[in-house]
Amino acid sequence: MRSSLDCVPCFVRQALDASRAISDDPAFQERTVREITGWIAGVDLDLAPPSFGQHIHRRLREVAASADPFRAAKEQQNSMALQLLPELRPLVAQSAHPLSTAVRLAIAGNAIDMGVTDRVTSSGLRQAIEQAMEQPLCGDPDGFYEAAEAARSILYLADNAGEIALDRLLVEQLGPHRVTVAVRGAPVLNDATVFDAQAVGLDDIAEVVDNGSDAPGTILPDCSEEFRRRFAEADLIISKGQGNYESLNDETGNIFFLFKVKCRVIAQRVGMPVGTHVVTRPQGHICAPEDREEI
Amino acid sequence: MRSSLDCVPCFVRQALDASRAISDDPAFQERTVREITGWIAGVDLDLAPPSFGQHIHRRLREVAASADPFRAAKEQQNSMALQLLPELRPLVAQSAHPLSTAVRLAIAGNAIDMGVTDRVTSSGLRQAIEQAMEQPLCGDPDGFYEAAEAARSILYLADNAGEIALDRLLVEQLGPHRVTVAVRGAPVLNDATVFDAQAVGLDDIAEVVDNGSDAPGTILPDCSEEFRRRFAEADLIISKGQGNYESLNDETGNIFFLFKVKCRVIAQRVGMPVGTHVVTRPQGHICAPEDREEI
Repeated sequence: MRSSLDCVPCFVRQALDASRAISDDPAFQERTVREITGWIAGVDLDLAPPSFGQHIHRRLREVAASADPFRAAKEQQNSMALQLLPELRPLVAQSAHPLSTAVRLAIAGNAIDMGVTDRVTSSGLRQAIEQAMEQPLCGDPDGFYEAAEAARSILYLADNAGEIALDRLLVEQLGPHRVTVAVRGAPVLNDATVFDAQAVGLDDIAEVVDNGSDAPGTILPDCSEEFRRRFAEADLIISKGQGNYESLNDETGNIFFLFKVKCRVIAQRVGMPVGTHVVTRPQGHICAPEDREEI
Repeated sequence: MRSSLDCVPCFVRQALDASRAISDDPAFQERTVREITGWIAGVDLDLAPPSFGQHIHRRLREVAASADPFRAAKEQQNSMALQLLPELRPLVAQSAHPLSTAVRLAIAGNAIDMGVTDRVTSSGLRQAIEQAMEQPLCGDPDGFYEAAEAARSILYLADNAGEIALDRLLVEQLGPHRVTVAVRGAPVLNDATVFDAQAVGLDDIAEVVDNGSDAPGTILPDCSEEFRRRFAEADLIISKGQGNYESLNDETGNIFFLFKVKCRVIAQRVGMPVGTHVVTRPQGHICAPEDREEI
């Protein structure tokens, strides 16, 4: 999807938040924000938001002279989410609909997004889990359960560190033997890489691949040929998070997006308010276009 | 006060909101946002936020080829607030502390700020009034009542259209014979000009002057010599709104700022959360510096 003009101030804010997360030096923060703001002023809005994120974070890594400035944050997020698994796993097993519960928990994990908030605490994650358990899953969750039952091979596009620990519960429910988990090809923000998949033990139960790209989403032309082949061949693609939605919503294929609506631009696109827990197909609109002006 | 890095994404958002309020044409909006974002990237953050607003809105007026693109919005805001006066005036008169009630209502009017929200409805204004009547006035309201009693001459720096109708209630309480109301010297956003002071009848009860500047604040070096003389000679200056606070907080003099805290930067500066109703002097900090990290 094309970026909205509403994304422009948000990109500037994300650059500021990221520069602060990387360094306490106000001179570094100011230099970085100025440079990225200047770049944003001239760039083509036909690009999807994750392409902006890709550029912003490449530049941040250069300026910070660090290949993975969010490594420590990601480790803390993985550890925080892993600590919850012993109490969440029985919740899934004892549920009347274990797959639905696992979907809810996987979407709750999507709250761990440093593009939206610079810090997710353990209590914040617990709150996100409570919300996901109580609120409706909007879109087409039944269509998803059917597609999941029918699929022989599933490509699971992970999103963020920490979140990927909760994804593990869903992968366990799906039956890990038929699931390949795809992560980013290189560090970008707190997005999950192979390192994070290993940190939460996903590589012990399922195949893990990287997509060859450092975008905070799945921009197919930027991904490796090997990843694109797997994308084309999978019976079902499960795409986690807004970044993957923003980059794949115009694709065809048997894709289901699982995410939490985090901004007004996406709220408008899916036709549901910020905070909604969504399970939807490409171009799947949850409310009718004529109602979308109200959002 | 110097602008914060946090102001940078907010300036971009304000430019976007203003461009949308001026025109429905997406090409106009995009061109405007790009140009202003490019300018912001290079500008000196030593400037106070109203200096950014001044530049942004000068450029918007040029691009829109309109000397006062928010004229219709301001008329609607004046009319909306004026309609409430018949029910608010008895509220002041019958109050146990009429001056305090008038201060609360004047601060409630500060909710009509197009730099923060693109549309204030009548119900939104009523809600702001309810909040202002219920919540504490933070800072030094008693110091203000004493200063108001003692002053022979008062210079009242108005802020926005609509808001200026509620300012009238406070001017009436202060005794209009000793009050001079100062408005912006030329249109900028929905800030009040002489036109708006006349629209709410302030010119019938008090002297009204303009400050000679088109900044959405009171940047003294940018104001007319005549205004600066009045500023220097007034016994008491009542300064409404965040824009005036941002531009005058480093000044000395018998100034009281009356405003609603509208952003994190100012919340940090005054040491109270967003939404607080504040009556404070220059450099007046409402909580101790060591507590401000918590805000």
